Amino acid sequence: MARMLRRLRKGFQSLTSFSAATIQPNLSASESSRSEVALLSFFSPKPRDFSLPNSSWGSEMMRLYDHYNSQCEAETEGGQTQGSPWQRLPSYNRSLKYAPGGVYLSKIVQSKARLFTRNIREPGAAFEYALFVNKGEKKCVCIFQAGWLLEGPPGHVHGGAIATMIDTVTGTHATFLSGPIMTANLNIAYRSPIPLGSTVLIESSLDTQEGRKTFISCKVMSTDGSKLHTEATVLFVSINVSHLVRGG
Amino acid sequence: MARMLRRLRKGFQSLTSFSAATIQPNLSASESSRSEVALLSFFSPKPRDFSLPNSSWGSEMMRLYDHYNSQCEAETEGGQTQGSPWQRLPSYNRSLKYAPGGVYLSKIVQSKARLFTRNIREPGAAFEYALFVNKGEKKCVCIFQAGWLLEGPPGHVHGGAIATMIDTVTGTHATFLSGPIMTANLNIAYRSPIPLGSTVLIESSLDTQEGRKTFISCKVMSTDGSKLHTEATVLFVSINVSHLVRGG
Repeated sequence: MARMLRRLRKGFQSLTSFSAATIQPNLSASESSRSEVALLSFFSPKPRDFSLPNSSWGSEMMRLYDHYNSQCEAETEGGQTQGSPWQRLPSYNRSLKYAPGGVYLSKIVQSKARLFTRNIREPGAAFEYALFVNKGEKKCVCIFQAGWLLEGPPGHVHGGAIATMIDTVTGTHATFLSGPIMTANLNIAYRSPIPLGSTVLIESSLDTQEGRKTFISCKVMSTDGSKLHTEATVLFVSINVSHLVRGG
Repeated sequence: MARMLRRLRKGFQSLTSFSAATIQPNLSASESSRSEVALLSFFSPKPRDFSLPNSSWGSEMMRLYDHYNSQCEAETEGGQTQGSPWQRLPSYNRSLKYAPGGVYLSKIVQSKARLFTRNIREPGAAFEYALFVNKGEKKCVCIFQAGWLLEGPPGHVHGGAIATMIDTVTGTHATFLSGPIMTANLNIAYRSPIPLGSTVLIESSLDTQEGRKTFISCKVMSTDGSKLHTEATVLFVSINVSHLVRGG
């Protein structure tokens, strides 16, 4: 059990996002033992990055993706970017599987488990999104196209799906800034409903960091910035990953 | 357009839940014209009620379902219950489709759209839940079993999936009390993570009603009541349904 915890802890330390949706794999040979790499390549073919464009993306998604992606530097072999303040964060459908040791652990913890925001493979059906983080401005931007399986009020996105995206974007941002965290408080004001099928912009900004607490603000807007759909403040607390394994 | 709005408004007035997940069909011949009933029966076979037990439900879900269901009176032909304060609310996978006129409108608004909490047909994979409302105590109870597609932190339920269930339960409750509403504010405190696969109890209580505002409190607890996982306060505002059709 202690060994399992050590492996899990090590795995989490390499994750960019923890509570939320976007997870960075860390499979470089320099940081993983040869046996782990061999194990990973045996169980896992190259994972699908769900944040890359697909045929379901509308023209507004593509325009915004190109806008932010063109400001990112190409990734080096180690998955790092340098020089540009913007970085695109890849996104997979499992929290645990692609961390060192995670393939082994995911067999034990929940073999069928899938990340909530990436649990449907059909392109365009549910959450289509890509995240870009700006290291200099401590800001994160997400472009989000809402699919037909996210309905709440007829023809509009469910309040829970909007909450899910806010938790995902701010959680990814907080993890990027503060390491492993859990959402402690999520306070959302819904201003204007989001039509199903539309593309919106989600902006996350750091308010302050105090000890174990990270305070983030978030806005969901129309892509031209003229309409505020939703705004939120979110509090995250830094965690010791072993608490989760021991049952919170 | 005016005719369409009238039909939509009439449809919504008969819905038990609007912003959230549980929708009551209203297909009785006494309230719909013959032509509407014919249209409905042509397009819609008897819809699946997702809140009925299925093979994925664990022993705790079944025990709690039996506990609350035994306190409900059997439904009469018109879908009404009398005498007992408890009522089970059926749940379908489309907001609009089963309201009078909704079949016609759903073809226009979004033919493929599915309610966010009922968008996966595989039993046990995502949100398994049943809602019971207590008219006398102005209280609503939901039993919720979290499937493997709702993962956030490894082995635990995503904060957005918990927010979704809170919005769904309190939204259904608010609609039951106040008619058509939209979520205006959702304030959630996450106390303890919920293990994937577990069953929890979600309780919704009316705090107060002031003009167009309905204030609801909500708790997510272990089924024996010993552990508080999450608590929330939610504000709903009563709406005129035509605002949605006109684009919020």
